Amino acid sequence: MIDFEILARDGFARIGRFSTPHGPVDTPALLPVVHPEPRSQTIPPAELASVFGLPALITSSYILWRSTALRERAEREGIHRLLGVAGPVFTDSGAFQQHAYGRVEVEPSVILGFQGRIGSDIATVLDLFGEPEASLDEARETVRVTLDRARTARSAREGLLAVPVQGGLYPELRWQSAEGASTLGDVLAVGGVVPLLEQYRFADLARVLLGARPALAPERAVHLFGTGHPITFAFAALFGVDLFDSAAYHKFARRGSLLFPEGTVALADVREPFCGCRLCDRLPLTEIAGLPALEREAAVARHNLWMCTSEVRRVRQAIRDGALWELVERRAAAHPALIAGLRATARGSSVFLPVEPDSRTSFREGTPISRERPAVVRFRERLSRWPAVPGLARLHARVPLTPDSLATIPAQAPDQSDIPWVVPSPVGAVPLELSEVYPIGAWVGPEEFDRGGGVGPTAVSLDEREPSPEAAERVTRWTARQTRALLTWEFPSLGSGVAAAQLRGVRSPKTGRLRELTLDARAAFRVGNDGLPRPTWIGGCWLHRTVPAPGHRVVVHSDAVPFVREGRSLFSRFVARASPETAPGSSVLLVDEHDELLAVGRAELAGFEMGRLQRGTAVWVTAHARSSVASPVEPVSEAPTAE
Amino acid sequence: MIDFEILARDGFARIGRFSTPHGPVDTPALLPVVHPEPRSQTIPPAELASVFGLPALITSSYILWRSTALRERAEREGIHRLLGVAGPVFTDSGAFQQHAYGRVEVEPSVILGFQGRIGSDIATVLDLFGEPEASLDEARETVRVTLDRARTARSAREGLLAVPVQGGLYPELRWQSAEGASTLGDVLAVGGVVPLLEQYRFADLARVLLGARPALAPERAVHLFGTGHPITFAFAALFGVDLFDSAAYHKFARRGSLLFPEGTVALADVREPFCGCRLCDRLPLTEIAGLPALEREAAVARHNLWMCTSEVRRVRQAIRDGALWELVERRAAAHPALIAGLRATARGSSVFLPVEPDSRTSFREGTPISRERPAVVRFRERLSRWPAVPGLARLHARVPLTPDSLATIPAQAPDQSDIPWVVPSPVGAVPLELSEVYPIGAWVGPEEFDRGGGVGPTAVSLDEREPSPEAAERVTRWTARQTRALLTWEFPSLGSGVAAAQLRGVRSPKTGRLRELTLDARAAFRVGNDGLPRPTWIGGCWLHRTVPAPGHRVVVHSDAVPFVREGRSLFSRFVARASPETAPGSSVLLVDEHDELLAVGRAELAGFEMGRLQRGTAVWVTAHARSSVASPVEPVSEAPTAE
Repeated sequence: MIDFEILARDGFARIGRFSTPHGPVDTPALLPVVHPEPRSQTIPPAELASVFGLPALITSSYILWRSTALRERAEREGIHRLLGVAGPVFTDSGAFQQHAYGRVEVEPSVILGFQGRIGSDIATVLDLFGEPEASLDEARETVRVTLDRARTARSAREGLLAVPVQGGLYPELRWQSAEGASTLGDVLAVGGVVPLLEQYRFADLARVLLGARPALAPERAVHLFGTGHPITFAFAALFGVDLFDSAAYHKFARRGSLLFPEGTVALADVREPFCGCRLCDRLPLTEIAGLPALEREAAVARHNLWMCTSEVRRVRQAIRDGALWELVERRAAAHPALIAGLRATARGSSVFLPVEPDSRTSFREGTPISRERPAVVRFRERLSRWPAVPGLARLHARVPLTPDSLATIPAQAPDQSDIPWVVPSPVGAVPLELSEVYPIGAWVGPEEFDRGGGVGPTAVSLDEREPSPEAAERVTRWTARQTRALLTWEFPSLGSGVAAAQLRGVRSPKTGRLRELTLDARAAFRVGNDGLPRPTWIGGCWLHRTVPAPGHRVVVHSDAVPFVREGRSLFSRFVARASPETAPGSSVLLVDEHDELLAVGRAELAGFEMGRLQRGTAVWVTAHARSSVASPVEPVSEAPTAE
Repeated sequence: MIDFEILARDGFARIGRFSTPHGPVDTPALLPVVHPEPRSQTIPPAELASVFGLPALITSSYILWRSTALRERAEREGIHRLLGVAGPVFTDSGAFQQHAYGRVEVEPSVILGFQGRIGSDIATVLDLFGEPEASLDEARETVRVTLDRARTARSAREGLLAVPVQGGLYPELRWQSAEGASTLGDVLAVGGVVPLLEQYRFADLARVLLGARPALAPERAVHLFGTGHPITFAFAALFGVDLFDSAAYHKFARRGSLLFPEGTVALADVREPFCGCRLCDRLPLTEIAGLPALEREAAVARHNLWMCTSEVRRVRQAIRDGALWELVERRAAAHPALIAGLRATARGSSVFLPVEPDSRTSFREGTPISRERPAVVRFRERLSRWPAVPGLARLHARVPLTPDSLATIPAQAPDQSDIPWVVPSPVGAVPLELSEVYPIGAWVGPEEFDRGGGVGPTAVSLDEREPSPEAAERVTRWTARQTRALLTWEFPSLGSGVAAAQLRGVRSPKTGRLRELTLDARAAFRVGNDGLPRPTWIGGCWLHRTVPAPGHRVVVHSDAVPFVREGRSLFSRFVARASPETAPGSSVLLVDEHDELLAVGRAELAGFEMGRLQRGTAVWVTAHARSSVASPVEPVSEAPTAE
């Protein structure tokens, strides 16, 4: 099976890598569609790797197979020699031709065998293409037939296999198809979406992907057939799409259309040499229109492919920055259809919650959809279950943003404390204790820059609000309250937070912010810039004593116990069990089968992903027994790992 | 005085050109800030023109003057030889140093004389820098002193003179300062804004520019001191800023920050070679961090300048496309501070109405601010004054978008006609007659792409709605109603529209849309894709008979009468009088001093601008007496022009 490894991630989106017989594929990857017939190639395949840095490509085995001359040559020379490339070659099976011409005249086993004989690195099962207009029964049939063929193909093929996911516009069928494909395919290829992409039906595309996503195995690569326009890459990556395939670069070139991540521009409308890319340096946009037809088409195709390449890199950078949602929102501003798609995505944001990271470096509000991001949905949802402030959930639902409306809330907590208990925030009233927690504390929104009205984030510190000496007692009480609040927020298994009273909060003398929680005067938790408490070894031991198993536990396979105990990070394949609620980035307790605490760490994978991926790290160890000397514990996430 | 010419425009933004002793300046132009001391130059000045295509630059005369050696050399050789450039050199006067160091030690007349002696193409008056924190009295003083000095400078200098506009954050002072500067300066340089730009206070910047804008003379070039970050260019251009000056490219380079039109990225955060520009082709972003310090700084500075250059070109393309607001909204998605700035801009959108074009090719809704664009504000405002449907204004104010709420409106018009009289649109209920008019008919919003809910534009044609044969009579009645509606919408001086009943609407047999209005079976108006009727010569004569002067008139100076009568376009300097309400793009009647009709045309300039600009076209003639043979009249906007 595929050896897919996650190197970095942001929600479902991931920087990944897997091997093929012709070298690794680094994802997200753009697979340019190459015509197998040299005469029909706008850009010579060898140029894709050498000039565009795209070593992997995709071609149609069906088009090859249809031509007797090409077929025989491919079987004799192999597909790599035929195309003149050294890197991974994916082959499609003819499903697109079904869509374009109504049918294909080849048996599924024949085209699969052919893909094998020509040395395809990833062969695709010949699926039944489901049009968006398909009825429920028709769509069900595409799923059934495709899975039947996939089962036969799996038993016939040793190498990597792409299994299409069909199901039309029916989310439950997409789910079913994705689940079936996940047990059979190395690559899960969401299909039947070309008409949606062509017609800018991104809201429908979102519904398709939301349907399939929960059932797509995290240890497989995900391909979205037909994503070739750079405006779609960031959007598709949001759903964890690892592979885009693009015929758009030359299809659009044929009709004189330039592709940009911000949309399409007709060559005829170009009035200024506004693109600063490396190709435009040699041949400005304003001069392309004057070229002879074939040269013009090739120049536009190269330009388009270069824009696609750069956009994939930008998506990769955004994933590493934890800023993919922000990039998607920015891209959405380029076309109303993408806004519609993102709205539909936000309506299904519960799908994203299992992989939504604990925190990010910043939260930048770009559009109204920013307030519906999974980070906000999860914050609200946690708040609704949070026991610390009774009745807040109800209150939260009806309190809008303005200071005016806030005045209608009783200023004092039900316990008659004189400390304000809720403050306004961009997402409504939040308990003062949580105003520094991600995403509230990291929020950067228009209001902060607009003196005209509104309220910004509320990193209110009582120290600053009341600097008089008699406030000391109040600050102590407030610190105790916030200490309990942060612990029960991050570790809900602590329940009512009675145990949390054992810890003391220590504020930074400079900023007044809570920076450390101590137990018997020793650092037990550190509060990061994201406002969340992270356990040291001492804190981990306390948490382990206080919260019964399986709370916050990741159980380590016995083979890896000695390594984890010494501070090496835990690889996914050595995870025996993990609480399925574990979010990427959250603090976990690493224990052996007898619930003995081995180390404290931060999850790289979500709980449900641990153990499924056969390569890569599941938990970075941040503290362990040996690190628990009296001196403060620094995170050791850069420690060497062992497999 | 400056010979500023408008070549293309979108609202206040314009593609312009003016001459200097060292060649023309094409605007919007980026003036890179060059340090006069060669040792402090990150990029050699000669490279700006040859490599970056930036022939004009700006340097500080004060820094030159302060150094005895440099001063003497500059006076001996001239500034062009000193810098080694052939293009236009602007000089600043030391006001920025006031801001940075609190004061400058030079007399205004001394530094002005120095700028003259060294051959500056545009010298700047030494103004009094107004900090944003200035009190009303302090700010008033900056305006008074700056204008005093400007008057002295004007009488002392023959060449081009830049007069700063001060006034702090007080819109009325900015207005007063802009009005004074407009009578004295060739370039109107809005100053005291560097702190706003540095602190991303774009909402305050918007208030400053909204205050100054109505008083800035359209025949002068407008400069905004300190606009160096490419995220600000589109925003500034919206207010008609023609000249940006940028020290940002090397200032940001010094601290390792990369500038992009989508924001700033710290070199240390670059993990992927995500920029596809021509410089990154030779030196990918991921490799810059590893260079020695000075090389790194120069590489980042070049990269930053290249991004600035490309963004100015993109702004130019957007102006030519009539899509600058769309670009600004897209850019605003990159930073919440820009959203705040754009919101503040939209709150003052009445400032933009005098130059808001009649129509554009499309209206693409990108953000919530799209619905507050001047095009929408003007549509609403016209609707509120429109007599054709009594009571609509009140209705419009309270009808939101949904079909549900529309059901609460009586389906029939007050005249008991059975034709629906209002339909939903993205901006609320509009009369059915106007549903094809810009911006409603050109609207492209998310709702169209989202089957989940909402309503799109409503290009409802009764022909399609009721194809039965007995509908003929209804269609006739409907066509008459729409004919009257379109005429009174575009030509409000027609009043109640009784006269409009003389015209007959002709629908396209293919689309069912109203395409022509005829008078005695001859084409009098053509209805464009923007839904607006444009007069032929016959229509112009009818309009001229029907609407008394000065309605829709532009009075042609007697010298130009023979040319206009023959169909040549009207230059601005031959406009004797024009109705101040004339919007760019609107249809006008060209008459002589005795109100004899010479030609029909479309305005390039707003009414208040005509006659003020000494170069360029005010009205493109589209039909004239000679073109009024029986055959349909084609626009002759490409006709040769005479001056």
